[in-house]
Amino acid sequence: MSEIQYKKVMIVMGSTSDWPHMKPASELLSEFNIEHHSTVVSAHRTPERMYEFAREAENQGTEIIIAGAGGSAHLPGMIAAISHLPVIGVPVQSKFNDGLDSLMSIVQMPRGVAVACQGVGSMGAYNAAVLSLQILSLGDPKLREAFSSWRKAKRSAVQLDLEP
Amino acid sequence: MSEIQYKKVMIVMGSTSDWPHMKPASELLSEFNIEHHSTVVSAHRTPERMYEFAREAENQGTEIIIAGAGGSAHLPGMIAAISHLPVIGVPVQSKFNDGLDSLMSIVQMPRGVAVACQGVGSMGAYNAAVLSLQILSLGDPKLREAFSSWRKAKRSAVQLDLEP
Amino acid sequence: MSEIQYKKVMIVMGSTSDWPHMKPASELLSEFNIEHHSTVVSAHRTPERMYEFAREAENQGTEIIIAGAGGSAHLPGMIAAISHLPVIGVPVQSKFNDGLDSLMSIVQMPRGVAVACQGVGSMGAYNAAVLSLQILSLGDPKLREAFSSWRKAKRSAVQLDLEP
Amino acid sequence: MSEIQYKKVMIVMGSTSDWPHMKPASELLSEFNIEHHSTVVSAHRTPERMYEFAREAENQGTEIIIAGAGGSAHLPGMIAAISHLPVIGVPVQSKFNDGLDSLMSIVQMPRGVAVACQGVGSMGAYNAAVLSLQILSLGDPKLREAFSSWRKAKRSAVQLDLEP
Amino acid sequence: MSEIQYKKVMIVMGSTSDWPHMKPASELLSEFNIEHHSTVVSAHRTPERMYEFAREAENQGTEIIIAGAGGSAHLPGMIAAISHLPVIGVPVQSKFNDGLDSLMSIVQMPRGVAVACQGVGSMGAYNAAVLSLQILSLGDPKLREAFSSWRKAKRSAVQLDLEP
Amino acid sequence: MSEIQYKKVMIVMGSTSDWPHMKPASELLSEFNIEHHSTVVSAHRTPERMYEFAREAENQGTEIIIAGAGGSAHLPGMIAAISHLPVIGVPVQSKFNDGLDSLMSIVQMPRGVAVACQGVGSMGAYNAAVLSLQILSLGDPKLREAFSSWRKAKRSAVQLDLEP
Amino acid sequence: MSEIQYKKVMIVMGSTSDWPHMKPASELLSEFNIEHHSTVVSAHRTPERMYEFAREAENQGTEIIIAGAGGSAHLPGMIAAISHLPVIGVPVQSKFNDGLDSLMSIVQMPRGVAVACQGVGSMGAYNAAVLSLQILSLGDPKLREAFSSWRKAKRSAVQLDLEP
Amino acid sequence: MSEIQYKKVMIVMGSTSDWPHMKPASELLSEFNIEHHSTVVSAHRTPERMYEFAREAENQGTEIIIAGAGGSAHLPGMIAAISHLPVIGVPVQSKFNDGLDSLMSIVQMPRGVAVACQGVGSMGAYNAAVLSLQILSLGDPKLREAFSSWRKAKRSAVQLDLEP
Repeated sequence: MSEIQYKKVMIVMGSTSDWPHMKPASELLSEFNIEHHSTVVSAHRTPERMYEFAREAENQGTEIIIAGAGGSAHLPGMIAAISHLPVIGVPVQSKFNDGLDSLMSIVQMPRGVAVACQGVGSMGAYNAAVLSLQILSLGDPKLREAFSSWRKAKRSAVQLDLEP
Repeated sequence: MSEIQYKKVMIVMGSTSDWPHMKPASELLSEFNIEHHSTVVSAHRTPERMYEFAREAENQGTEIIIAGAGGSAHLPGMIAAISHLPVIGVPVQSKFNDGLDSLMSIVQMPRGVAVACQGVGSMGAYNAAVLSLQILSLGDPKLREAFSSWRKAKRSAVQLDLEP
Repeated sequence: MSEIQYKKVMIVMGSTSDWPHMKPASELLSEFNIEHHSTVVSAHRTPERMYEFAREAENQGTEIIIAGAGGSAHLPGMIAAISHLPVIGVPVQSKFNDGLDSLMSIVQMPRGVAVACQGVGSMGAYNAAVLSLQILSLGDPKLREAFSSWRKAKRSAVQLDLEP
Repeated sequence: MSEIQYKKVMIVMGSTSDWPHMKPASELLSEFNIEHHSTVVSAHRTPERMYEFAREAENQGTEIIIAGAGGSAHLPGMIAAISHLPVIGVPVQSKFNDGLDSLMSIVQMPRGVAVACQGVGSMGAYNAAVLSLQILSLGDPKLREAFSSWRKAKRSAVQLDLEP
Repeated sequence: MSEIQYKKVMIVMGSTSDWPHMKPASELLSEFNIEHHSTVVSAHRTPERMYEFAREAENQGTEIIIAGAGGSAHLPGMIAAISHLPVIGVPVQSKFNDGLDSLMSIVQMPRGVAVACQGVGSMGAYNAAVLSLQILSLGDPKLREAFSSWRKAKRSAVQLDLEP
Repeated sequence: MSEIQYKKVMIVMGSTSDWPHMKPASELLSEFNIEHHSTVVSAHRTPERMYEFAREAENQGTEIIIAGAGGSAHLPGMIAAISHLPVIGVPVQSKFNDGLDSLMSIVQMPRGVAVACQGVGSMGAYNAAVLSLQILSLGDPKLREAFSSWRKAKRSAVQLDLEP
Repeated sequence: MSEIQYKKVMIVMGSTSDWPHMKPASELLSEFNIEHHSTVVSAHRTPERMYEFAREAENQGTEIIIAGAGGSAHLPGMIAAISHLPVIGVPVQSKFNDGLDSLMSIVQMPRGVAVACQGVGSMGAYNAAVLSLQILSLGDPKLREAFSSWRKAKRSAVQLDLEP
Repeated sequence: MSEIQYKKVMIVMGSTSDWPHMKPASELLSEFNIEHHSTVVSAHRTPERMYEFAREAENQGTEIIIAGAGGSAHLPGMIAAISHLPVIGVPVQSKFNDGLDSLMSIVQMPRGVAVACQGVGSMGAYNAAVLSLQILSLGDPKLREAFSSWRKAKRSAVQLDLEP
């Protein structure tokens, strides 16, 4: 099994087919030079790897885990059950009702095990990175400033006119 | 942690609050003198116990695992990801839409990891025992006969008249 | 009416249009050299054939029935009402909400008549075969070993890297 | 098994627990002196009785079949698959989403097998009787007149004032 | 306003865009030489025409009304509120959840006003014609026989083999 | 049939059982001394009265119609189809999924026939009155001022402290 | 930030991507020569602009606000919370269940803050303009007449024949 | 308006009626001696207060905002649109489908504005506090240790035996 490269933010997902949905999270973190790594960790197909990953992440210096999964999406919740780190869950749409199954599986966590659930799909993955930046900003004034500037710039750039 | 008593059929559930829903499974198995044991194994609150249970069950002689859980119900799917035994899943209703979340979390398993999902609640738990009896009957002609007789008796006893 | 060839595992479905969804079940069983046969048995369009099939299957040596159906999907439940064999149900997506109707019709069986419901579509059909292998393994140590090896091989082959 | 008394309209249901929901159909038919009989015929628990009933009803002079069922509600659809008579289906609410499962199971019938689905519960059962009266009126001018008068009377009696 | 040609069975729909979905009803009735006519009658866009149609149909010799509509599908229910004839409703899928809105609007009729709801779309339209044939057969032994023969022929023609 | 008293705002509903849900609309209008009248007008049980009401309201000086209905809730949409006045629809919860059926029936109106749909139940009825006040304010500066003051007062009175 | 041009009717939306859905509202208002302006005002991306817009609209002579938004659609409700003008909300379909999320976010407003919710998508946008015309007609007899004539013309033009 | 006491963690909610659902968040934070304050901030009823709160929180030393709301739940998303702090959203069940409306309104945020959505109700509120502790632990080794110990103690205390 390929060894996991632990970084400050880990982006894990159940399958390579989730990558197109999850990639926006990686891209946004890169934009802010946040050390991160993306890899497949499947609750169902590589349960040992998942367990090991969840147990080790904190010791290896990881601070935030972004986990995307579809269908019976157990990955974010299982990692949150094992690790004490904040876990951000991204429901990836499967073939059933645009990801209703994934959303239900991720958001309705039992008392005591929290997942920070995002919206379905690539929009949710992008926002998982936004939330990561907001969390990391709490202990990093420079990042806080960079994030704040970036957001203001984004807002100034919102296109307001509908037609030329 | 209390040690797990492995029996031919294991009935596990995420919480003691699931017991009233799951008990009908135990009662029906008792009616057929099937060795079984019911205990709490929580994917989210006792993940180590869950891993150990799922990894050991087959070696300890267990043949079928019935797993009930509510909300983000990861227990049946996670056990099915670790053990090679047949896993029967019972969605227990949480406070959300009569268990729609539990059902979605249990039934939509990814390619290669099967859960035999039952209906929501105690009806589903009862049927998990029925299915167990049907599976065990394949290798046990006496049980097959007993099951067949029981079912015929049940059917003869169906009340057909609506009013006296 | 063409006669039914009873085999150890029977894969039945409501219509030839279900075949593309159900075929993965047949293919996986073939991979393990499990004797099986696939045919159309429709609860609604060939109710007599369905009745006969469900009544005879056990006598003819069948051990497991996989039944796929869409819309008002009555096939798995009706077979389970007539036969004492384990019945695995596969909801096939119809044109309505990605198979929500099929799922509801298959999973919410009444007390005493169990169907082992899988996820919607070809993924569910594939898992119906996985579950069949797990059930048959209980009485067949060689199959158990083969299944275990296959699964480990599958897991080793899970692609973990997202980009070259 | 108690023999079935075939009448012009048959009201069948999966269980005695459906009777409180189905009774309004019987009461309305009585109001019009339509010969009818209510009994339990379960697709899942008494499949032989169901087959026999569906096959015989037309020969025995039955003209309309009202069938109520809950959960995986297969009764109306199975009767419609076997009998050529008009079948009116009534989804009875189970414990899941106020009968969404029953509704899905009854209304989404495949091409060629029709069920006249009503609303969920006792309101639907009452309307099943209304529809029966409308169908029977086609060949019975007296009933047509009686039905028409009754409906007008009902309408005149609609309470319009909200407060005294 | 074009005058309505009243026939034994009337197939009405809210818009010409419903015609591709409703046409199978007309085709099946033609196969049995049942006099029928298809036209647009919109509850929302031609409410007066709808009212007149519903009030006159019975007097003009119509026996059954098949009404298809999408979205806030009020046509079948409104006709059923005005006419005493049996009304068969067909939910036509709109752009929202494959016709969930149409289905809800048609099936949940209040106590005393019945609609015989079919499944969503062209399959439901086809079945509306099947149900019409079953109703008309009650008073027409020849049609009954023709229907019965047709159904048997259809069943004999069900393709059972999945692969050559 | 009791004659309808036309007022500036008419609050109509399908049944006296809707009154407890609709009453908050009447109470709020009274608070602002808006002439209004509440009565039963049922699309399904009193279709003639409904037609007459919808056709006459504008001529009789009515400016806004608030219509509440449950289940297959056709009342708001049918009035909107006949009258040119603004129609505000209130989905009243029936026994099915907290009024999902009513909501679907009211909100998904076809192109060209608008209903101003509110939330489900008494909250929606109250807001129907709020919207009426906002619409009437457009042509009534005094009401505009009264509404504005009332709203500010309401806001000042929002309880902010959670515990004493 | 581009300044907002306040007109009698304002059509605002969360993003330029909503414009194809919202354009029919603008087109219909143009047909009646109603002064209006369409622009992007995003609750989430330009919250200050949104706040300013909602606070100023009434003072600037705006009478009606049409607001379209998708996903967690907060725009109509937030404007309605700040402005006293009538707000018409249009749920724009996002990638999730054809806009179920948008509909839920717009229609279920709390007691005291009303939004006039329309159906999902361009049909709803068109109807938002229809409702605006109906509201404006209350104080403008000429518009009332024009609207009435237009509607009659539209109705006369409804195509009733299904086939040539 | 009562002034807001800014603390490290702010728990805000739309109404005092949300307090019983949100209180578990406050209680858990108290258990860890995390400075926090709970108050009503309503997006709809006190929009000015909401704007001010969201704009000032970061300057006043707040690090995390927990926001609970029901129905058209705009509070978490609006705060997240204005503040750069991490916002944790808690859908509070309203009277509609156990909070489906609240969940949809909170979780489906647009690209660039993240909310960390929790499950519906008090369970979600409790987990909002858990997530807060996990986030604060990143910069506070003592809290990290306390959280870790607490969690282990909780897990040791999980009741495993179902019956005495």
